[in-house]
Amino acid sequence: MKVVTTIQALRVEIDAAKQAHKTIGLVPTMGYLHEGHLTLAKTARAENDLVIMSIFVNPTQFGPNEDFESYPRDLPRDTALAQSVGVDIVFAPSAEEMYPHDGGIRIHAGEQATILCGASRPGHFDGVLQVVSKLFHLTQPTRAYFGQKDAQQVAIIATMVRDFNFPLELRVVPIVREEDGLAKSSRNIYLSESERQEAPAINEALQLARDSFLANGDAERALVKAKAHIHARTHGRIDYIELLAYPDLTPVTATTQQVLLAAAVYIGKTRLIDNCIFTVKEGL
Amino acid sequence: MKVVTTIQALRVEIDAAKQAHKTIGLVPTMGYLHEGHLTLAKTARAENDLVIMSIFVNPTQFGPNEDFESYPRDLPRDTALAQSVGVDIVFAPSAEEMYPHDGGIRIHAGEQATILCGASRPGHFDGVLQVVSKLFHLTQPTRAYFGQKDAQQVAIIATMVRDFNFPLELRVVPIVREEDGLAKSSRNIYLSESERQEAPAINEALQLARDSFLANGDAERALVKAKAHIHARTHGRIDYIELLAYPDLTPVTATTQQVLLAAAVYIGKTRLIDNCIFTVKEGL
Repeated sequence: MKVVTTIQALRVEIDAAKQAHKTIGLVPTMGYLHEGHLTLAKTARAENDLVIMSIFVNPTQFGPNEDFESYPRDLPRDTALAQSVGVDIVFAPSAEEMYPHDGGIRIHAGEQATILCGASRPGHFDGVLQVVSKLFHLTQPTRAYFGQKDAQQVAIIATMVRDFNFPLELRVVPIVREEDGLAKSSRNIYLSESERQEAPAINEALQLARDSFLANGDAERALVKAKAHIHARTHGRIDYIELLAYPDLTPVTATTQQVLLAAAVYIGKTRLIDNCIFTVKEGL
Repeated sequence: MKVVTTIQALRVEIDAAKQAHKTIGLVPTMGYLHEGHLTLAKTARAENDLVIMSIFVNPTQFGPNEDFESYPRDLPRDTALAQSVGVDIVFAPSAEEMYPHDGGIRIHAGEQATILCGASRPGHFDGVLQVVSKLFHLTQPTRAYFGQKDAQQVAIIATMVRDFNFPLELRVVPIVREEDGLAKSSRNIYLSESERQEAPAINEALQLARDSFLANGDAERALVKAKAHIHARTHGRIDYIELLAYPDLTPVTATTQQVLLAAAVYIGKTRLIDNCIFTVKEGL
């Protein structure tokens, strides 16, 4: 495995891969890798000739009061983990390498970025689109891998790929779950024993709402069922549960084909997110 | 030569070219081709294995009161001209093909876009960056060809290519002129006979200003001379004549090496633009 820190050195690797007609899988990360990242890398490994993992804590997606400086970093541990799952190239540039100039051009996410998790993070998804588009141009991937756990991020990147015709396939890797259905997360360790027993109710609520919506097409009724389940089974506080067209994140209509059901729930002091994306059968 | 109108058909051509390791030259146009466009295509022909010309009147770069509807179109003539200079593929999509969805994501140009032509065309360069980035992704060119005529456009696209790491080379091709010095333009057909006789004064004024600036380094004096010439030789109305550092489009300073002299003048109702880019000798 190679660790590459400059754009020039990366370009040499990409040119050689393209020359050899290799398929390229890109796994963009901010490092401090956990099982979710490694699942993305393993999926990329199975599907591509060359696997590139970027490790870059992108300053432009952090708000002024957010944790950019204190965001955890551990490149030696990350590179060892990346190597263990078969990554070929780790691209770990500095902020100066990624942003040497500023001509003032910006990508702005639209309405999609103002709801769900975006409501409390203005500008966050603009920064995500900026760095992701740069990484796409720098690595020219055949496929790029993102976790479905961050459904809003995936939806907004999918919209950019679609509307700006990026020549790549976006691969959305399913949420990895515990045996009882709780979505895996670094934050699950914060849960007390009783909270941990309540937490699977979030996924259960999403399943109930999905089944309800597929049965009768009534979004409001589906959400009421989900909320009732969470209130019955947990002491948690619901931040949001929403049912939206995917990837546009607009209200569901008669022509909607893909649906995102997304929830954020405080179990105790721990904010957990979960979601499911499903296809609506014709005739709803 | 092939004429391709769908993204799907274009993708087949691009994939085949990439598979064969062909270099790709892209010439983006809005059609109604004149000698300027053909010079771009000839340059691309000399430098690449495969030459793609896009012909697309992009609605998103026209303001609500601009001439999108009446912008001249003649695809049969354009395709014949493209073929005559060795273009391999004309990509002529409909607006529906290019913009089937709108997820609301936008690229916004910065300060560069608020001066010169941008001052009177808010949002114009945002639309240009949108369509150019889409065309870059759709055709994956080795080199992309733009005319110096639209100097501000070139500067802003160069900034996007640099700051967003597009994997291509931007080639800027000099202005093609009529025998009397008038810059060639699709809009020249709007000029009456007397207006057509006045129009070369724009280029003359730029040459006067350049000579004046090179002689004494006084930007203001150079611009006064240019304006006086246009007022003396035309009934036109000056939109702007400016002297700026190129490609930053910032005020000229003691360290400026490249200078852009750019003018926009209404001759009758027709707005004509012209410019020259020149190098400042040391010691000014």
